[in-house]
Amino acid sequence: MVEWADEEGARFGHSLFGSSAVAGTLNVAEARELTDAAGLRLGDVVAEHGVLLDRLEEARQQTRGARAYLEAHIEQGPVLEREGLPIGAVSGTVGVERHRVTFRGQTAHSGSTPMDARRDTFLAAAATALAVRSSAVRHQGVGTVGAASLRPGIVTAVAGETAILVDQRHPDARGLDAMLAEVQRASHEAARAEGCAVTWEPVFRVRPQPFADDLVGVAREVCAELTRQERVLPSWALHDATPMAGVIPTAMVFTSSTKGISHAREEDTPEDHLRLGVEAFYRTVCRVIARSSASTDGRE
Amino acid sequence: MVEWADEEGARFGHSLFGSSAVAGTLNVAEARELTDAAGLRLGDVVAEHGVLLDRLEEARQQTRGARAYLEAHIEQGPVLEREGLPIGAVSGTVGVERHRVTFRGQTAHSGSTPMDARRDTFLAAAATALAVRSSAVRHQGVGTVGAASLRPGIVTAVAGETAILVDQRHPDARGLDAMLAEVQRASHEAARAEGCAVTWEPVFRVRPQPFADDLVGVAREVCAELTRQERVLPSWALHDATPMAGVIPTAMVFTSSTKGISHAREEDTPEDHLRLGVEAFYRTVCRVIARSSASTDGRE
Repeated sequence: MVEWADEEGARFGHSLFGSSAVAGTLNVAEARELTDAAGLRLGDVVAEHGVLLDRLEEARQQTRGARAYLEAHIEQGPVLEREGLPIGAVSGTVGVERHRVTFRGQTAHSGSTPMDARRDTFLAAAATALAVRSSAVRHQGVGTVGAASLRPGIVTAVAGETAILVDQRHPDARGLDAMLAEVQRASHEAARAEGCAVTWEPVFRVRPQPFADDLVGVAREVCAELTRQERVLPSWALHDATPMAGVIPTAMVFTSSTKGISHAREEDTPEDHLRLGVEAFYRTVCRVIARSSASTDGRE
Repeated sequence: MVEWADEEGARFGHSLFGSSAVAGTLNVAEARELTDAAGLRLGDVVAEHGVLLDRLEEARQQTRGARAYLEAHIEQGPVLEREGLPIGAVSGTVGVERHRVTFRGQTAHSGSTPMDARRDTFLAAAATALAVRSSAVRHQGVGTVGAASLRPGIVTAVAGETAILVDQRHPDARGLDAMLAEVQRASHEAARAEGCAVTWEPVFRVRPQPFADDLVGVAREVCAELTRQERVLPSWALHDATPMAGVIPTAMVFTSSTKGISHAREEDTPEDHLRLGVEAFYRTVCRVIARSSASTDGRE
């Protein structure tokens, strides 16, 4: 049983903090320098709570002897509900490119600065946000600008600096790379058109991560027993299973999400779907333990 | 001599607070409900500092007996500098439409929500910001989105609510009305395309305000004496002169602004232009007082 630290990454933008530390995929030097909305450094904030970044390496010992990693979750998307399914097995998690994109132009008076004399960073950011969407649609991935901060951020000034957080996801590495390249190009074109400069800083990046075929097979088999329907689907959300799948055989079980809504107060799942999800997870755990015990009998 | 309260309006979005109160053009009921970035109400905040909104009407008595209102300012734009002029007389201030435009859609997970299932308010706001610009260019006015706030405003969620502050200005009332109507239409189209709702709330509105011809003539005459060049230009920035011009004969003198930059740390004016500006303002004041005294001799 494990309770992971900061799966969401809402404050510093870096998801899967604890699990990627344990898996050894956390770039500690980069993570240390991440800042929150108030400009506080991750390294300083976690230190105040007794987390020593220099000793994160030791966390990897926690996985010694682990045979499998299994996780239950709500889908957070509409796929199972659209297909009338309460639960499903998960094939893996999609790849994610998450970057802070900062446009720098010139703060100026919003009345007395003629339109042809402006270097308006918010317009460059707006054009880039629209490109994030069109690129995602073109490649059948997803792409989101969920955060934007303007400076000085007042009604009477053209924003001299605008930073947006861009999140792009795709189940296929080539699709992900193509989306990233397209939006980078679009951001440079938008910046040039507005007389601004643009910089990209990685906030969080993870490649598409397939789960272990045999364990996914167990989860699929259990779901089929309980619902008489088989469904294996990719996860467009990240989970702590993502970094764990790189070091331990991993699988997940999903329950449906009502209207596919997540990360919002409307997030919900019918209670009977939750009961089936718990049962499917329990049976999957039992079977994986039984298989693992059988395969190591006489060796330990 | 007067020092006005909150000319800028940076915190609550309402410019010219003190001068419009004195001129009687402040809508007290609307102003009371304006909120700052933290959601605090203007009415509550000014009350903490001893300003009683219910007694603002009494401020109008301050203008009793005033014969003229004269103000000196930097241009905050590039016109005088482009023409090689240190100072100029001001013909009046342009009209301003300033609104808070709020898009409401659905907060959702930025990974697991398919592109075709989104109601992304930031995309609607981005398209509207681009329309603010194109409309301003078309009508030879100016238009700016200098502030945007997204909720929840995190990288892992599609923004379920985005509010932008739109500022549009034009020297001509018909041009201003046309720009406002165009952008309102564009915002409704953008909202519909993204499956969102949109609401417009006025934050601050002022019609184009010409200054008093005879006083502008005095300022122009003085500037011509000092620079051997005549230039009368409109002000694209608002000033406390704007509401005062509605109740008292008003004029202004401008000095140049280096590179036209204002509302930014680079804001500057050459010292010799400032000296000429002070001299022009002083001479204008003296002449207006002399004229006023002459015209009332024997009457008071």
